[in-house]
Amino acid sequence: MVESFVALEFRNEKLVLLDQRILPTEVVYVDCSTYEDVEFAIRDMIVRGAPAIGASAAYGVYFAAKQCPEHNDFQKACTFLAHSRPTAVNLSWAIERMKTVHTLNSKQPRDVLLQALLAEAHAIREEDIQTNRTIGRIGSIVVPHKATILTHCNTGALATAGWGTALGVIKQAVEDGKDIFVYADETRPRFQGARLTAWELMDARIPSKLIPDSAAATLIRDGKIDLVILGGDRVAANGDVANKLGTFALSVICKAYGVPFYSVVPVSTIDFSINDGSAIPIEEREAEEVTHVQGVQVAPSGMQVYNPAFDVTPHQNITGIITEKGIMYPPFKENIERIRNGETL
Amino acid sequence: MVESFVALEFRNEKLVLLDQRILPTEVVYVDCSTYEDVEFAIRDMIVRGAPAIGASAAYGVYFAAKQCPEHNDFQKACTFLAHSRPTAVNLSWAIERMKTVHTLNSKQPRDVLLQALLAEAHAIREEDIQTNRTIGRIGSIVVPHKATILTHCNTGALATAGWGTALGVIKQAVEDGKDIFVYADETRPRFQGARLTAWELMDARIPSKLIPDSAAATLIRDGKIDLVILGGDRVAANGDVANKLGTFALSVICKAYGVPFYSVVPVSTIDFSINDGSAIPIEEREAEEVTHVQGVQVAPSGMQVYNPAFDVTPHQNITGIITEKGIMYPPFKENIERIRNGETL
Repeated sequence: MVESFVALEFRNEKLVLLDQRILPTEVVYVDCSTYEDVEFAIRDMIVRGAPAIGASAAYGVYFAAKQCPEHNDFQKACTFLAHSRPTAVNLSWAIERMKTVHTLNSKQPRDVLLQALLAEAHAIREEDIQTNRTIGRIGSIVVPHKATILTHCNTGALATAGWGTALGVIKQAVEDGKDIFVYADETRPRFQGARLTAWELMDARIPSKLIPDSAAATLIRDGKIDLVILGGDRVAANGDVANKLGTFALSVICKAYGVPFYSVVPVSTIDFSINDGSAIPIEEREAEEVTHVQGVQVAPSGMQVYNPAFDVTPHQNITGIITEKGIMYPPFKENIERIRNGETL
Repeated sequence: MVESFVALEFRNEKLVLLDQRILPTEVVYVDCSTYEDVEFAIRDMIVRGAPAIGASAAYGVYFAAKQCPEHNDFQKACTFLAHSRPTAVNLSWAIERMKTVHTLNSKQPRDVLLQALLAEAHAIREEDIQTNRTIGRIGSIVVPHKATILTHCNTGALATAGWGTALGVIKQAVEDGKDIFVYADETRPRFQGARLTAWELMDARIPSKLIPDSAAATLIRDGKIDLVILGGDRVAANGDVANKLGTFALSVICKAYGVPFYSVVPVSTIDFSINDGSAIPIEEREAEEVTHVQGVQVAPSGMQVYNPAFDVTPHQNITGIITEKGIMYPPFKENIERIRNGETL
């Protein structure tokens, strides 16, 4: 199974991004050639999804080094990039990794430094694709031979450097010959499920239906869903998972009705530095995401809005967290510590 | 507190409906002068909300009698009206009530018959407004002096002949001098919360915020919601409530975190003939409600959709059902039976 598109690619000294703001009605690519371009692309969600944000930011750091010969300016550019979005920890993870390469090569001639940074950005991108393939193979184990899977938001090739996390598990299960049907939550307010996951599911010819987010609960209660598989934007050291708004509610319904609930993330999404989900910063986005849909007004002018982009699912509601180092089950704290120590589960 | 609009009114032999498909960006009225007009207005959701559907259908029966001197044609017209939407029981309740008047006056001269039917339709409309005022006064009792209330879909003057059910309770609490803040779920896919409830809340100057449906769960968990108050489209004899898609999920979250959850309905919404919610027909609506927003495409062409308009909340998740005959608490079956027997709780 190969995607018919590449969402994130470095070509001719440019980071070329598939514009995820306007899919699926238009397939348009956006060129980024400065760190400011990359910062805007992340902030405005031309590119989104924790791993894809990380890979994009890596190229952003490369651009920053190109643009900023002065160390201070480079640091400022990196900080600027790191503040483009607050919740996904892959962003700071990738930037820190790039900064380490920058430090290691700071005494090198400028072209050597830049080459090393570009190589590291390529490595981050390539590793993410390989990581996702590994995650897919590991995750497919939890998918029954015949299964109806519910997923939320977009976790496919569009959300990563390629292949995907949760959607990668689903695609791998299909490749493994399993009989899979997918319900995709539309994922308000940005419609990542309707616009992006539906597009990827059709691209991969996986039998599926799109549903309003609120339709999931009855499907779960009525035994129509065998398991829920979705992504994660930041995992705390105790296994609490910040993910797209709507994830927490699904986890409560799954727990109430005994349906397995898996979060799928690369290890780079684990933030070992925070004890639990309460410390994860939750991005609040602009009112217009709720009051307007692609420019069409759906709420009265002047109405106040509360629009958090993510929520936190407590580890008690999670069956397992699927990573490239194995599947973590409770007790999450111990198993996350083992992964931190380099073990494979 | 008086609304600045009348959503449903009989004037110059026409049923004049505020077009709820295009609010709040345009305030347009639609004239109905035939039962076919009324059937379309209900089916296409120019008018919606269980009590408003009932009152509109009553005028539809009056038009049917005007248009159909032959008894058979009249019966067929009534059946046609009754099939406009399947879930709200107020529709068949109002039609049956009108048919009884038709039968009682079938030997009368035609103008007397028509006058009797029009008087009954007016009565249904007037009674609904009075019922809602009574419900509001009764329901306000459960609202603390200072309260943050979450509501779902639209249950105000737009959903009824006037004033509202759940939103009527909220407005009464404000009239009673209580310090009220409202979170309104946007209510996908038709955005009744964003388009209609937000409009009514602004009209009534009640402090409030609009949220994506998925944002409710975390607010409930974090103690930000004192109680949930919403409507109902059909209540079974055991207290199970069919209501707008999304209600069931809210009820599970409320139960998990100990937040009071009230459904507010006139007695005409109780279907004493069915034992439990599994017998309530759940309307499945067209894919385009999910794939398009006011004509703007948000999902790839050809994507399959599952779009149930309602879900069923089991009575075990409901704190109380507020009616004009009092508040029903568990055991619901016994208390619904008492209401059926004409008692006031």
